Amino acid sequence: MHCRKCREKAVIGLPRHNAAFCKPCFNEFVHDQVARAIKSERMFAPQDRILVAVSGGKDSLALWDILLKLGYRADALYVDLGIGTYSTKSREKAERFAETVGKPCGATLLIHTVQEEEGAGIRELADLIHRPTCSTCGTIKRYQFNRVAVERDYDVMATGHNLDDEAARLLGNVLHWQEEYLDKQAPTLPASLEGFAKKVKPLYRLAERELAAYAVLNRIDYIVEECPMAKGSKMLLYKEVLNRLETESPGTKQAFYWGFLERQTKARPAPASMAEKDQAVLHPCMTCGQPTTADICSYCKMMARAKAGAPH
Amino acid sequence: MHCRKCREKAVIGLPRHNAAFCKPCFNEFVHDQVARAIKSERMFAPQDRILVAVSGGKDSLALWDILLKLGYRADALYVDLGIGTYSTKSREKAERFAETVGKPCGATLLIHTVQEEEGAGIRELADLIHRPTCSTCGTIKRYQFNRVAVERDYDVMATGHNLDDEAARLLGNVLHWQEEYLDKQAPTLPASLEGFAKKVKPLYRLAERELAAYAVLNRIDYIVEECPMAKGSKMLLYKEVLNRLETESPGTKQAFYWGFLERQTKARPAPASMAEKDQAVLHPCMTCGQPTTADICSYCKMMARAKAGAPH
Repeated sequence: MHCRKCREKAVIGLPRHNAAFCKPCFNEFVHDQVARAIKSERMFAPQDRILVAVSGGKDSLALWDILLKLGYRADALYVDLGIGTYSTKSREKAERFAETVGKPCGATLLIHTVQEEEGAGIRELADLIHRPTCSTCGTIKRYQFNRVAVERDYDVMATGHNLDDEAARLLGNVLHWQEEYLDKQAPTLPASLEGFAKKVKPLYRLAERELAAYAVLNRIDYIVEECPMAKGSKMLLYKEVLNRLETESPGTKQAFYWGFLERQTKARPAPASMAEKDQAVLHPCMTCGQPTTADICSYCKMMARAKAGAPH
Repeated sequence: MHCRKCREKAVIGLPRHNAAFCKPCFNEFVHDQVARAIKSERMFAPQDRILVAVSGGKDSLALWDILLKLGYRADALYVDLGIGTYSTKSREKAERFAETVGKPCGATLLIHTVQEEEGAGIRELADLIHRPTCSTCGTIKRYQFNRVAVERDYDVMATGHNLDDEAARLLGNVLHWQEEYLDKQAPTLPASLEGFAKKVKPLYRLAERELAAYAVLNRIDYIVEECPMAKGSKMLLYKEVLNRLETESPGTKQAFYWGFLERQTKARPAPASMAEKDQAVLHPCMTCGQPTTADICSYCKMMARAKAGAPH
């Protein structure tokens, strides 16, 4: 197997592109895909300050790595959920990467510790409010990433969602025809005028397998285990099913998600009108001031329930 | 396990309905589902003459059986594709059912033999025109069913597509965002003014597994093997994947296909305007007179290519 570009010995084959690459050409391919995503979806400009949501996993660390290599001003935020050794290990990975790769580029790692700030780990919080751990975690992470991005004046928040993540999420939304969620599956969600940071997914053109290869080839030390809370999750089932389809027909995930995006582009309201729409329904939470469609935002409601449920 | 209706011993459990039934109550359930489909999708009226497309398999024979038991005037058409013992056996099943169940109800089985009418079996035809067997078969069956329905003045053509068939087809269309096909996935397609018979799928509310149970419980002798030409087909792959999802979350197929139909109903043009739209683009084939969007219909083009390719 030879590299499609330079004819050297290839280190990875990409069936969906009917191509194979050596290490330098593969890195170039990955960087190109991210640069294309940033440009075509108008994610950010060279002078913008970016906040990357890192988990210690391959995708988010690869994203931070790529953005720094492409010359962007990218800091990162790690949310420590307090899930035993999983959190300890993943935090170490994020900190080590920040020290060895981030710092030399002048980039900073911010850390939010749920145990300290919310007063309990994610599992205890979920128990207290009688909700699944993953949805509790989602609420906290969305809230804290947005708060930090807005309070510290970042222009945009970037997450490491890859093609597999987006295709799996799309499959779930399509299987249940979740109109409202379908509307929000674009790789760029504009900032709302009322306090939601702009959110982007620069890895949506790259498959999970490609990001794992990028991390390994570039010696990014990441946590390999899935979050122990995610076992048996619907997303893992959707990924499994899409992998089965991808094996039979390479390119299925890409056709599915990119095809959806093309279709949405035709029907999607322009970012300006979307911000206007948001403005019409969003207002500051009466407790914390962050944007919400209700009187009290879901994070503050959750924390109030957790406090009420906690032993006195 | 007890029957949900009469508390007798159940013979089948239906996880997606969180129910179980004894034989008489299960038959009632199946008949009810078909009656609901016919009514809610305005498929046909008691006096209409129906032509059922039968293959010798469980779905189409069960459909014919149910329509006759519900008191409808339903004849059937079997297309003999000339696929060795598979065709011989499936034809026998259709003929035996016609003799034992159809005839006492005054219903007739019509037979179209590809070898005689088209001059060669389906495999030879596919070879001659260098196209996949399944697409050649689809073209011939669609053409012949429509021709017979129109020429013999049937009011409507009914096929045995079940929930699994429709969900699998929908998955394929959604994975590739086939807009045009998505528009035609309704269980009732109105007749076009220019010569397409009305087409309906009265089994779209019933799963494959339920129809297999109905056939076995009612001693309908059907051909169990899949068509040997369908091996490795995309439809079988989509069904496998949907079965995986259904096992984890009973009701997934139903939510997926029925949810799609609800969504389409909101956006779907009324039958009248659809017929008008068809009228604008369809006109008689210059060779055979059946409706087509081109000068020559795809069946006549195919047959011309087969003749040109045949050894002289």
